Amino acid sequence: MSSTGALGQLMQALRCLPGVGPKSAQRMAFHLLQRNRPGARQLAEALLDALDRIGHCAECRTLTEGTLCPVCANPQRDRSLLCVVETPAEVHAIDQAATGFQGVFFVLHGRLSPLDGIGPDELRLDLLERRFQSGEVKEAILATNTTVEGEATAHYIHAMARRDGIRTSRIAYGMPFGGELEYVDGTTLAHAFKGRREF
Amino acid sequence: MSSTGALGQLMQALRCLPGVGPKSAQRMAFHLLQRNRPGARQLAEALLDALDRIGHCAECRTLTEGTLCPVCANPQRDRSLLCVVETPAEVHAIDQAATGFQGVFFVLHGRLSPLDGIGPDELRLDLLERRFQSGEVKEAILATNTTVEGEATAHYIHAMARRDGIRTSRIAYGMPFGGELEYVDGTTLAHAFKGRREF
Ligand SMILES: [Zn+2]
Ligand SMILES: [Zn+2]
Repeated sequence: MSSTGALGQLMQALRCLPGVGPKSAQRMAFHLLQRNRPGARQLAEALLDALDRIGHCAECRTLTEGTLCPVCANPQRDRSLLCVVETPAEVHAIDQAATGFQGVFFVLHGRLSPLDGIGPDELRLDLLERRFQSGEVKEAILATNTTVEGEATAHYIHAMARRDGIRTSRIAYGMPFGGELEYVDGTTLAHAFKGRREF
Repeated sequence: MSSTGALGQLMQALRCLPGVGPKSAQRMAFHLLQRNRPGARQLAEALLDALDRIGHCAECRTLTEGTLCPVCANPQRDRSLLCVVETPAEVHAIDQAATGFQGVFFVLHGRLSPLDGIGPDELRLDLLERRFQSGEVKEAILATNTTVEGEATAHYIHAMARRDGIRTSRIAYGMPFGGELEYVDGTTLAHAFKGRREF
């Protein structure tokens, strides 16, 4: 049996998953075809369905099914408290953890990285600026990661916010330096939120 | 953002992959939707295509696209030398490694395991018996894994083959005890084939 044809293409396609190399892809392909064909079909359908239905929230840019994500669409959320994060996974992590956070989000989909061509335009900081200028936001929690680029991004947004007279804070307590917010446990994340300090 | 809807369903569906728990599934879902939508679509299509096109070879029962797999369809292969393996992944591993094996295969899709209700019928040993009785096979290489159940399966097939006057051998050299054939490197596998001994 060669690695060409439908089987080879499946092995190749599985490698688009993060952390999946040729050996794992091979193991996954055989597992699905031999032992879990219904699961394979469900996965294919879930992928197509997600691609079809999931886009960006018009307000905060997180991944969502409707025009507005459940957070932005919820009138109970405190729109004066805006938390800026790098990725939708972080919105998810913060909302899953018992952080007590009741505000809203803005998702950058990245961080400033001039060498990679990622500047304010790529992060849609124009949309964030518009939020700041609406007068609705009182405090911006800068929850970018504690990496060098995450810090630089927080500084940049801090300067923007100050021009509009908006207070900023930075989550800090409990975050390991160089750590990725998405992989921090819920308790640490809760501490990081409660222990946030003026930027 | 909650874990329901299309996103939650995708996370759930990804868990059908071996070795993928809730955290990895979440990371994979976000990665695909945020950074690799074309890859996600390709994966969905490769899954559906594979499900649609890949079945069992009528002769050896390995996974294949046609009625016969490329090995069984190849007139150059030595049909007097039959290698019995547990899974299609092992056919793949043996054919990828430079074992020098030029014979044909029979795939059991498992091993005898009475406690799990896996007996001769489940392994389609009736089909194997028919091959033995055809007079075509001179030697059966028993390449089931070196686990307790794999050994028991080899013994069972050895007894069957002997009744039909067929010589059996067992690959042995270089296989770690309790090891899974699929995960052994090519060189070890080549040695195991060359060093096979009469059962
Ligand atoms: Zn939103
Ligand atoms: Zn075949």
